[in-house]
Amino acid sequence: MMADPVTPRFLRACAMQPTEVTPVWFMRQAGRYMPEYRAIRSRHTLLEICRQPELAAEVTMQPVNALGVDAAILFADILLPLIPMGIGLHFAAGEGPIIENPVRIEADVEALRDAVSPMESLAYVMETVRLVRRELADRIPLIGFAGAPFTLASYIIEGGSSRNYVKTKQMMYQAPSTWHALMGKLARVVADYLACQVASGAQVVQLFDSWAGALNHDDYTTYVLPHSRAVLRDLRLSGVPTIHFATGASAFLPQMKAAGGTVIGVDWRAPLDWAWQQLGADVAIQGNLDPVALLAPRDEIEQRVRRILQQAAGRPGHIFNLGHGILPETPVDNVRAVVDMVHEMSAAIRSQEQTSTFKEAIRL
Amino acid sequence: MMADPVTPRFLRACAMQPTEVTPVWFMRQAGRYMPEYRAIRSRHTLLEICRQPELAAEVTMQPVNALGVDAAILFADILLPLIPMGIGLHFAAGEGPIIENPVRIEADVEALRDAVSPMESLAYVMETVRLVRRELADRIPLIGFAGAPFTLASYIIEGGSSRNYVKTKQMMYQAPSTWHALMGKLARVVADYLACQVASGAQVVQLFDSWAGALNHDDYTTYVLPHSRAVLRDLRLSGVPTIHFATGASAFLPQMKAAGGTVIGVDWRAPLDWAWQQLGADVAIQGNLDPVALLAPRDEIEQRVRRILQQAAGRPGHIFNLGHGILPETPVDNVRAVVDMVHEMSAAIRSQEQTSTFKEAIRL
Repeated sequence: MMADPVTPRFLRACAMQPTEVTPVWFMRQAGRYMPEYRAIRSRHTLLEICRQPELAAEVTMQPVNALGVDAAILFADILLPLIPMGIGLHFAAGEGPIIENPVRIEADVEALRDAVSPMESLAYVMETVRLVRRELADRIPLIGFAGAPFTLASYIIEGGSSRNYVKTKQMMYQAPSTWHALMGKLARVVADYLACQVASGAQVVQLFDSWAGALNHDDYTTYVLPHSRAVLRDLRLSGVPTIHFATGASAFLPQMKAAGGTVIGVDWRAPLDWAWQQLGADVAIQGNLDPVALLAPRDEIEQRVRRILQQAAGRPGHIFNLGHGILPETPVDNVRAVVDMVHEMSAAIRSQEQTSTFKEAIRL
Repeated sequence: MMADPVTPRFLRACAMQPTEVTPVWFMRQAGRYMPEYRAIRSRHTLLEICRQPELAAEVTMQPVNALGVDAAILFADILLPLIPMGIGLHFAAGEGPIIENPVRIEADVEALRDAVSPMESLAYVMETVRLVRRELADRIPLIGFAGAPFTLASYIIEGGSSRNYVKTKQMMYQAPSTWHALMGKLARVVADYLACQVASGAQVVQLFDSWAGALNHDDYTTYVLPHSRAVLRDLRLSGVPTIHFATGASAFLPQMKAAGGTVIGVDWRAPLDWAWQQLGADVAIQGNLDPVALLAPRDEIEQRVRRILQQAAGRPGHIFNLGHGILPETPVDNVRAVVDMVHEMSAAIRSQEQTSTFKEAIRL
């Protein structure tokens, strides 16, 4: 099959169409591992960067210019849509996000707004999307994103990051109607927020359910899947590809797929081919290098990249990425090297495949 | 098949022999959720309790007397065998263990002792085992335990608890010979330590690889499996059943089984029947209620316990447990109730099975 030369390879891979090389980008590709980012971050808080579209656009473009990736991803914090819902939040140094008014009981859920008009209330995000699209001038696509309802719920119920998600699961188990009311509100806000990103120019969106792996298969199915499905179903109307990502979900990949997503993003724990087998052949896959592998010696990195590409070989629909975000300790040179490795090795693998297909053909 | 009435049901389940009811115990069944434990802990540090056999034995017996479980588990800290190896450690309030001399380079590994004579250097543990066995008077078996080499390595390399295991994986990737030397030493110490527990009276041992789920399938196979296998192979000589436990390992359960274990302990993420299918029918399984489910209303707990028992129904070799340790917030009454539920429901499931077998037989 010939690769379509006009549609960007990243979008073709989302649609499970052939590409001349495997597209690659990185979760948290704009971040503290880059000196250019740290320079801006030393003068501005995280929320300041998000709220000043010129700064957010500049940060979004930093890895595009430095790395040669196949997609840009909007720079924003996953908690931003909570602000117009009525959640107060700030970031404590070294502690992650602090939720000032955690949501614990039915009255807390009722008090949350879910008609938040993201075009106005999160206008700064939409302006960032527009600025980045202009800057990119169609060189590569722009990915918008949001946190999935479960991951957002866990932050606002726990009051911040969590280890065991005790309060979150307690709401599920003790007050399921409160839980579903909360998840319903979050799903509506997330769907609106992502639709506005698409309307502003995002060409793909990723739904991050980063902490879904705290759950078991049955709880995911009962308490999370319907709400993520509502978000992803709404987005189908926008016509853009969606990437549905979670970590620790090896035991319920088919359920993640059932919730929706043009592409399923998987973490590093499972071999890519095993994960793809669990998902079935009719969906694209994104992943799945361990972020810590970017701190390994170059030949170790090469082996690991090659192994993932080989596991994905033989059919279209693989987007190379990490299994989670880039760590602050990561050497920039290694990230850049992985982009080149993915492009070169995947081209070589495809040409071997073509040779062997040709050989088979003439043998016939 | 008739159940053997003499061997304790816990040991019969380990051997995949029929039992009249499913045996049950809980990881961290002696702990902060119990008022009796908190009373002792308010007067003594964790290490003091471990080092005073009368106290450690008392704490070990608390859940045996309060809950009606089918096994006792030695009260000890998984880091104890590191002390005779030359590791300094203390526990900071609310922060978990702090390793005073983290192991980072080859010289650090060389400096570690691996001929630690646990009978002498950890005599207080062995004395606890003897005291508990005397106290139990063969009512139920005593489980000894140790941390697996990987989990211990992660503590001493990181210097304490960790989120991303960056330093641990860096040693694997950058200095594999240092890594394997360290794991070899840890495996020898752990094997000796467990053999001494068995010689002192432990009737089963559990190897806790609590953090193995930070790894991917291939790294587990290359860097961890051989060392856990060395420990579990050595223990086969002792003739006691071994339980091999990890969390987050859904993507490499067959590799855990390949490392060894009479019983494989699984976390709560995967349905028990799916996990057992991954493992194959020729090994016993332990698990797998989410520890947070113990904070749910009673009828929710019942549904979850029933579901696990149904997933395990039809063949011997299931030991009921949580997918990880009991959380401090857990109501004692709920833990006690689960013991009764497991016994009553599993008896009912077996009698249904017998009835349907009988019906099938007379139909034939």
